[in-house]
Amino acid sequence: MATGTLLYAQSGGVTAVINATASTVVQAARARKVRVLAARNGILGALREELVDTTRLSAAEVRGLAHTPGGAFGSCRVKLKSLQEDRAKYERLLAVLRAHDVRWFLYNGGNDSADTALKVSQLAKEYGYPLTCVGVPKTVDNDLAVTDCCPGFGSAAKYTAVSLRECALDVAAMAETSTKVFVYEAMGRHAGWLAAAAGLAGEGANAAPHLILFPERTFDEADFLARVDAVVKRVGHCVVVASEGIRTADGSFVADAGGGTDSFGHTQLGGVASHLAGRVKDALGHKVHWTLPDYLQRSARHIASKTDLEQALAVGRAAVECALAGQNAVMPVIVRSSDAPYRWHVDIAPLDRIANHEKKMPANFIRKDGYGITAAARRYLSPLVAGEAYPPYGKNGLPLYIEPKLTLVRKKLPAWAG
Amino acid sequence: MATGTLLYAQSGGVTAVINATASTVVQAARARKVRVLAARNGILGALREELVDTTRLSAAEVRGLAHTPGGAFGSCRVKLKSLQEDRAKYERLLAVLRAHDVRWFLYNGGNDSADTALKVSQLAKEYGYPLTCVGVPKTVDNDLAVTDCCPGFGSAAKYTAVSLRECALDVAAMAETSTKVFVYEAMGRHAGWLAAAAGLAGEGANAAPHLILFPERTFDEADFLARVDAVVKRVGHCVVVASEGIRTADGSFVADAGGGTDSFGHTQLGGVASHLAGRVKDALGHKVHWTLPDYLQRSARHIASKTDLEQALAVGRAAVECALAGQNAVMPVIVRSSDAPYRWHVDIAPLDRIANHEKKMPANFIRKDGYGITAAARRYLSPLVAGEAYPPYGKNGLPLYIEPKLTLVRKKLPAWAG
Repeated sequence: MATGTLLYAQSGGVTAVINATASTVVQAARARKVRVLAARNGILGALREELVDTTRLSAAEVRGLAHTPGGAFGSCRVKLKSLQEDRAKYERLLAVLRAHDVRWFLYNGGNDSADTALKVSQLAKEYGYPLTCVGVPKTVDNDLAVTDCCPGFGSAAKYTAVSLRECALDVAAMAETSTKVFVYEAMGRHAGWLAAAAGLAGEGANAAPHLILFPERTFDEADFLARVDAVVKRVGHCVVVASEGIRTADGSFVADAGGGTDSFGHTQLGGVASHLAGRVKDALGHKVHWTLPDYLQRSARHIASKTDLEQALAVGRAAVECALAGQNAVMPVIVRSSDAPYRWHVDIAPLDRIANHEKKMPANFIRKDGYGITAAARRYLSPLVAGEAYPPYGKNGLPLYIEPKLTLVRKKLPAWAG
Repeated sequence: MATGTLLYAQSGGVTAVINATASTVVQAARARKVRVLAARNGILGALREELVDTTRLSAAEVRGLAHTPGGAFGSCRVKLKSLQEDRAKYERLLAVLRAHDVRWFLYNGGNDSADTALKVSQLAKEYGYPLTCVGVPKTVDNDLAVTDCCPGFGSAAKYTAVSLRECALDVAAMAETSTKVFVYEAMGRHAGWLAAAAGLAGEGANAAPHLILFPERTFDEADFLARVDAVVKRVGHCVVVASEGIRTADGSFVADAGGGTDSFGHTQLGGVASHLAGRVKDALGHKVHWTLPDYLQRSARHIASKTDLEQALAVGRAAVECALAGQNAVMPVIVRSSDAPYRWHVDIAPLDRIANHEKKMPANFIRKDGYGITAAARRYLSPLVAGEAYPPYGKNGLPLYIEPKLTLVRKKLPAWAG
């Protein structure tokens, strides 16, 4: 058995199942007698030499991670630039890895993390330091290249579809004398994957969501309002799903239209849903309500997709296997071999095919009129939200999420000045 | 067996479990060979003579109601005034009941519905029409008098506590480089029951939610901001729960402060969470996020409380039994005999003790500093969110909620002119 240490780090926005990946990383490494350190707050912890000693976690704690949302070791929003621009940071990183005999580096994140892992592998090679770098996929944005889908997305998608279906039943029951138009704001600055998932909540012209607004299509307010009005006249109410990233023809975000300052000079925080609801109220006079689930949609472990959980566990296991086998600068990816019945397996892809690429939603996933999803989108999305994977609950009615005490290993280097 | 028809109607904001009550009402009446009509859109359907023939629902559909959120027969926000002011409406109601041989009227709602049921019973007595009126409790606001709690509240409370715990784990993982202050807006215009339920998500000074803002306490912005800052300094981040109904010392709603019109003259819809987030950003400079779950919190059947579901089923059954036994102008209520282990049973209370009364949250449920809940609140709230009662799911990953086709019985009266 190879000696040395494996360093695992979480990066970017956390998900309902990123800790599930962490759980299998630690378990797979323990099975191979490899010690795992986890960077505190992602790459920042690696730079600061704040490294969690996972050997201090009990087997129950490691298992418990698999049903706990959030990021147990902390994540961060820090993007390293090119090797030239951020050379000092990359060299510091390498110094920390070397000081702790890290031979395998697993970086669990999206595009940026794949890029960082790739660059670290290049620098190690340049310095002749034996290091195997493996990216591990994660993002509710579902925008990683090569992989068929991204762990974290399926659970957020299931939350979205289920929540939309529930609030639509509420609105339908009350519309005669109360709210007639309801707007649900979905995450998705660049791509409408989660908004599309809301489309799974219903099928057919009269089923909610009646209108979906995708960032892939230009937002035309007059056309939107006319459609809302038509749906209210036909159905009695209208449920709208809006991606946070929709823009008008001049390229400006609709979310910014509602912002600015109020009459006291206080910051007025915007939002697509509140803005659209206000426009519907002004232009059509209907009673409106809206929701902004925000972080609730990406942390809802209580309604995680079983498919998603299984894939999050699988990529963690595969990443450890790759790393210990010396497969450098790669990422385990999900390959789909069949829609129905859904079949998938894990394959290994080179990081340079993933780093800094962005997977767009296929054009044929959006209906010709621009306000709904197609059968092709349903075929792709349905298996990703399939299956329930409930966390265990205590007698007090709350999930038994764990917050393990994190013990850092002793520092060996001078403090980081960066 | 008495002959005649039982009329059931849903009123006010719907909940995750009001259809469960409807389900047992229909089942209990069927078991006694009593025909059930259901008013379409609450009292409005009774006035319009839009009456759903529940004998057309299959046994599977009736069972399916027990796991379907929303209001299957439609609800409404219509409050009848006094017998003097709205005499014509009450008389029309009585005419409809008489035309369809309705001998038992079950009205499933909150304070207003209890009042309407009481008045209808008084009018029937005045006209010598043999009618038994029974109120059936329902409201996420938990503000009905006499009953220990209200069906619908426990599930919304569970949704709130679980969601808060999840998003708090998300915020904690990212706070070092991202969002430091997160604001969760809970329903509750007059009482902070749901905000209090969020308090179940954690216990201790450093556990989220770190600050809860109750409508029972005057909102002091300077004090609030100072506390947020102190929590961020101590914990690294701060999760705030705000009741939609909080007000400043002059009595104005904080939610209205963010509203008004933007620079285009468009309506700017307010909200407590977005306003508070903006104030935190301006005054303290922290990165903020906020969530407005809105209808999601009262329709989240996927995370219903088992206690709540059982109580919703029980009051429906008890209401039919009361009615058929001729107990007029009453409501089945929940009586708690023990906190731990939790023990409860259904009792019968006169409607005049419930109509137009409002149960406040006990003063000893709010911590002395005004920003958290006490042990007494935990003892009361915990059993109400206990137990899971998942709906069945399809292979497509979505709950098997039902939307039965509603068939109206033939009208016997001239159209209502009201």
